[in-house]
Amino acid sequence: MTVILTLGQIRHAVEPLELIRAMEEGFVAYSQQRVTVPPVGHLNFDDPPGDCHIKYGFVRGDEHFVVKIATGFYRNPDAGLPSGNGVVLVFSQKTGELEVILLDEGWLTDVRTAAAGAVAAKHLGPRPAERIGIVGTGTQARLQLDWLRHVTQCREAAVWGRNGERAAACAREMSALGFRVRVEARLEHLCASCNLIVTTTPSREPLIEAAWLRPGTHITAVGADGAGKQELAAGVFAKADIRAVDSRRQCCEFGDAAHAVRAGIVAAESLFELGQIIEDARLARTDDRQITVADLTGVAVQDIRIAELVLRRTRLAVDG
Amino acid sequence: MTVILTLGQIRHAVEPLELIRAMEEGFVAYSQQRVTVPPVGHLNFDDPPGDCHIKYGFVRGDEHFVVKIATGFYRNPDAGLPSGNGVVLVFSQKTGELEVILLDEGWLTDVRTAAAGAVAAKHLGPRPAERIGIVGTGTQARLQLDWLRHVTQCREAAVWGRNGERAAACAREMSALGFRVRVEARLEHLCASCNLIVTTTPSREPLIEAAWLRPGTHITAVGADGAGKQELAAGVFAKADIRAVDSRRQCCEFGDAAHAVRAGIVAAESLFELGQIIEDARLARTDDRQITVADLTGVAVQDIRIAELVLRRTRLAVDG
Repeated sequence: MTVILTLGQIRHAVEPLELIRAMEEGFVAYSQQRVTVPPVGHLNFDDPPGDCHIKYGFVRGDEHFVVKIATGFYRNPDAGLPSGNGVVLVFSQKTGELEVILLDEGWLTDVRTAAAGAVAAKHLGPRPAERIGIVGTGTQARLQLDWLRHVTQCREAAVWGRNGERAAACAREMSALGFRVRVEARLEHLCASCNLIVTTTPSREPLIEAAWLRPGTHITAVGADGAGKQELAAGVFAKADIRAVDSRRQCCEFGDAAHAVRAGIVAAESLFELGQIIEDARLARTDDRQITVADLTGVAVQDIRIAELVLRRTRLAVDG
Repeated sequence: MTVILTLGQIRHAVEPLELIRAMEEGFVAYSQQRVTVPPVGHLNFDDPPGDCHIKYGFVRGDEHFVVKIATGFYRNPDAGLPSGNGVVLVFSQKTGELEVILLDEGWLTDVRTAAAGAVAAKHLGPRPAERIGIVGTGTQARLQLDWLRHVTQCREAAVWGRNGERAAACAREMSALGFRVRVEARLEHLCASCNLIVTTTPSREPLIEAAWLRPGTHITAVGADGAGKQELAAGVFAKADIRAVDSRRQCCEFGDAAHAVRAGIVAAESLFELGQIIEDARLARTDDRQITVADLTGVAVQDIRIAELVLRRTRLAVDG
């Protein structure tokens, strides 16, 4: 019998610290090459413009394998609908049976992306973070700040967006999370006042220049999740003392690091995977003035681990 | 809101003649290049052995796109479980929303494969069919014969399988469909007495030789659905007057025709797609002594069309 869980049930099952641990464990499994993740499947639509991504894979020896389907239709908000949508399917690795359908409407992808940002900050962020700078004003802007609360005591934040009104609205929501938030009109000023920065935009050209970064800054980029997107100038990777990625293979194909690698500015071998850094603290920050960068493009192992976490929690709830 | 349909509801919605028409229309759309079908996604498991195929695509201008996930775990029957399993997801091409989940347990794949066999026989089969020969004793063996009832009056059948007991059991079930069935101990004898033949085995070496085929015979091969599989000797394609395939591109990659093409025995250009033949009757049989062959490897457009048919029927039922 296939169990179907709705968004309400799924939300209820995600406990933040547990998810952060699950992401850490997933990244480690990935970097240890214990995960089978075929290339992402794509469908593209023209009228209206939209896309569908199919991510799937399994940790060898696990109980389950996972197929995640995520869609993005960017004109949906004109009709009052969310642009993102999706479903996560959990199958048995032993029988191929479809055990659980997670009708998450794309929420699990949002949350696992935010949790990965928290993992990057936990292992590479400055001690202490003085002010958190959020670049962008969308769903991930708020979620990244929300999830950073679990890995830092810092409650000072700044936000920048192309659209001032949206940035102000975003700042108000961020205040509700317990932060003192200021809106920065210029991105350069945000970089000057923050030493923990997260970029969350769909930009197709670099927004942040290397020269703007203070010594000791950590910057995580989560926006560039497909070909053609870029948030960080290639020089940021040249300047960084530590260059982290979620998947070296994928981050040499697309994302921010790919631009720096293709331009010959940094070598692919100089990129360390988050899973390697989690496993070996010697690869992390060794001095307060180091600049560190983490490029996160999203890997199916995150979908696998968050799905299993939901299953475990809902089973516990069912079994008593 | 995502609607979820179970196997019972799905079975109820499939009306044979309507499905045969839907398959015809789908093959025509495919051959007219109106369908986007990316390469199939695969996952393979070792312990226990199993696989997962992800087929997805859309007819441009349609209301929906479809993602089908099918699994095969061949030791499941040892534990009393079916080896095949699956689910079909129907999304809106306009918003990306997941509209319907068809919890079909693999049944739709079985049925659309059988319906495609009926389509091949309808357009290429001999008039009249004297006796139908079924090669193999599995699910498709029974289903192919079952569906041929919709396109031929012939109720004489013969069955052959490697395992005599299973062939006898299969023959009994086929009798219940209204056929006079005999079990053939030798495949050569089956070919001598039948002029409409369907091969449904997972064989990895050719079972049927060209010399065994009577003039006027049509033979449909549905078993070779992946690399390494083969049911028909390459000579069958050389001898055939008409060589049909569901997808020329795919049938040059794997399946029975691929062996003949790769061996240089027939040219890829000599293969006609079923969609072309349906559209242009001049490509079909023109004389009673012609030998015709159809190689069916399975195309996502079939999954799209059967899913839409189920949707249409269940909506009619809901709407009144």
